[in-house]
Amino acid sequence: MTTINVGLLGLGTVGSGVAKIMLEDANLLTQKLGYDIRLAKVCVRNLNSTRNFSPPAELLTQDANDIIGQPNIPLVIELMGGLEPARTLVLKALDAGQHVVTANKALLAIHGREIFQKAAETGRAVKFEAAVAGAIPVIRVLKEALTANRIQSVFGILNGTTNHILTRMTQDKMTFQAALGEAQEHGYAEADPTNDVEGFDAAHKLLILTALAYGVQPQLADIHVEGVTQLEPADIAAAAEFGYVIKLLATSALDPKSGLLEIRLHPTMLPANSLMAGVNGVMNAVAIRGHACGDIFLSGAGAGMMPTASAVMGDVIEASRDLQPAASPKVPALGWQNLQSWSVKPQDETQMAYFLRFTVIDKPGVLSAISGVLGRHDISLAQVIQKGHDKERGGVTLIILTHEAKEKNLLTSLREADELDCLTAPTRLIRVENRL
Amino acid sequence: MTTINVGLLGLGTVGSGVAKIMLEDANLLTQKLGYDIRLAKVCVRNLNSTRNFSPPAELLTQDANDIIGQPNIPLVIELMGGLEPARTLVLKALDAGQHVVTANKALLAIHGREIFQKAAETGRAVKFEAAVAGAIPVIRVLKEALTANRIQSVFGILNGTTNHILTRMTQDKMTFQAALGEAQEHGYAEADPTNDVEGFDAAHKLLILTALAYGVQPQLADIHVEGVTQLEPADIAAAAEFGYVIKLLATSALDPKSGLLEIRLHPTMLPANSLMAGVNGVMNAVAIRGHACGDIFLSGAGAGMMPTASAVMGDVIEASRDLQPAASPKVPALGWQNLQSWSVKPQDETQMAYFLRFTVIDKPGVLSAISGVLGRHDISLAQVIQKGHDKERGGVTLIILTHEAKEKNLLTSLREADELDCLTAPTRLIRVENRL
Repeated sequence: MTTINVGLLGLGTVGSGVAKIMLEDANLLTQKLGYDIRLAKVCVRNLNSTRNFSPPAELLTQDANDIIGQPNIPLVIELMGGLEPARTLVLKALDAGQHVVTANKALLAIHGREIFQKAAETGRAVKFEAAVAGAIPVIRVLKEALTANRIQSVFGILNGTTNHILTRMTQDKMTFQAALGEAQEHGYAEADPTNDVEGFDAAHKLLILTALAYGVQPQLADIHVEGVTQLEPADIAAAAEFGYVIKLLATSALDPKSGLLEIRLHPTMLPANSLMAGVNGVMNAVAIRGHACGDIFLSGAGAGMMPTASAVMGDVIEASRDLQPAASPKVPALGWQNLQSWSVKPQDETQMAYFLRFTVIDKPGVLSAISGVLGRHDISLAQVIQKGHDKERGGVTLIILTHEAKEKNLLTSLREADELDCLTAPTRLIRVENRL
Repeated sequence: MTTINVGLLGLGTVGSGVAKIMLEDANLLTQKLGYDIRLAKVCVRNLNSTRNFSPPAELLTQDANDIIGQPNIPLVIELMGGLEPARTLVLKALDAGQHVVTANKALLAIHGREIFQKAAETGRAVKFEAAVAGAIPVIRVLKEALTANRIQSVFGILNGTTNHILTRMTQDKMTFQAALGEAQEHGYAEADPTNDVEGFDAAHKLLILTALAYGVQPQLADIHVEGVTQLEPADIAAAAEFGYVIKLLATSALDPKSGLLEIRLHPTMLPANSLMAGVNGVMNAVAIRGHACGDIFLSGAGAGMMPTASAVMGDVIEASRDLQPAASPKVPALGWQNLQSWSVKPQDETQMAYFLRFTVIDKPGVLSAISGVLGRHDISLAQVIQKGHDKERGGVTLIILTHEAKEKNLLTSLREADELDCLTAPTRLIRVENRL
């Protein structure tokens, strides 16, 4: 079986997540891929830092040259952040024939032309799913799934810190300063929050999405960027009165009249009933409109150790496939090399909350009789509502929301309840899903 | 430049959309791919049917053998639907060394094992993004972007017809029968709606998602399937009282306690503030939870000519890349062969609605003065709210929502309004996006 060696530059939050997946989930990856992806070397600034996840000491080095240009390492992950030495190392890796995966949005927004040019010259891949919107696979979707589309617009909530602040200001009527302070305390905002709250981080991501959507590379100076520092609770309250929610929205839209691109980032009022308006906390989201696909909406964790590592690993896996000896197709139809042996849980064993609607005759003791039957079968009640007479169903409506119960017990108790004289119509059962 | 010949089986709604993209957007595809994808032959049942889009007559044939097994056609798109002859033709194509793209969920749910087995034997690809959730790239996301994840759950609204019916029942308090009748009138439901309203269509898609998520292939008979025909408006109204919305939800979740998979499809109550609950009309959605990525939510058009064609073409393009002479990487970093020449619209020229919050002294004539300034610069007002005294800002709050206006005019008028004696604090401006 082939083994693909991977070198990792940087072992901060995201780097630790990537190392953790490669070391702890190696079996899962092999099951799906049919070959091994091996963390061969990790370059760190300080060998003795404390970290979220520590790979074996023999994998660590302080010398990037143990990775860059090493012929047995065809794939380099750059997670150092910052412009230098990241830029120099990425260019050197491409020159040496290594594929590169990065999560560095500033690097790509500022030195993207040079890096992509070098990748084209050397025939190597530069993949950067994790640079925009964390775990949300928006790069792949724009670059591959929607290739046949003329993209008309891309809207996004691309910065989790500001979205968290705006959510607190909206839901809890906090001021910007208070919400920022709280976000800093919880580690959602940095000590110097400028890059986030003034919109630069989101603007870098917007430039990357724009490049993918329309094949252009505008510069930061070309676009209007406005952060959230001036927003007042009164703005948010007034927006709500008009049926709007305020988000820091990235806009990249083709204006069909002028044939020009609208690219801008500023606090924006969105219709409160839109999916985008419902994206709260540190979540990110992107809405893409194409001439064929219509509206596609994606949301998920925009940052964080494991979500970002998930995106990095998706790129590593994709790049590793190009490194395999020619086998076509590269990915099995179901994405797994072999079928797995999970069993399906019998429906009877399902455990969830249930909504029950009984139609009963209107006389004392009915609720007690029904709840007695349920109780005997270990069904406990979360909420009960008794309604007036329902003409159509010929009785009084009694609605019960249960706590989690086993479906078998529930169905048995309903059959038993059906025997009671007090039911005048079949009982309605709807299952309740609280994991969404 | 290389040309990849593609054969198309079936020219119904989706087939017409695929032919339209390949014939009308050939230039866009070449710009992005660097080679040509050419519609070589289309097999139809009847040469003279009326269609949504008609390719040139010389492309049409009634003989599938003009496509299947033709050595100059390495890629076959199956859009005939139904089990036979689709199954036989797909197997023959794979045997002949052709890659296959299909949107046929019933075929895959029922004959998937046989077809995927054949694909593995022959080393050919079977791609089926369009078989589940139309334009939403959920297959690609589960199969590739999230490869490094242990998937914990997949929830979905996978049938547009039933979601449309439930939306009408919820928003307009219609009965199931009335909503179904209306959907049939508008072409959202078929004359025999059994496959949709009894849940079989969504269940087929659920089986496919389950196979991708966990590498298993359960059968339809293994899972609980319950449609929407029994739902009453009273259920929906009662659910709302508890803060829930009823959707026909597909569930495929790993139960960590038992190690078993929960796979089922039934009407389900979802928290009203969840993104899934906000998916209305014919839209579909999928929520995926992985151990690393956290929660990913995808929504979009689940059916229709162009959305489904968009998904088919994404697969065609991906398969075509494997047919290119070895060039690594297969996809340029930005997904385009060359930079395009779009220009950025100057911010001054932006045209949108604006929210303005003025703080003014409380005396007659103020509204007239401000609206006069706006009017002189061609800004017309959509809504005006005058509030009481704002102690902090030392004046009365006047909120104006404008109709669409040019940003340059708006900023000029605000500068002019700043000169008025009646303003006691800086005016707040927030842009309004109604395209979401």
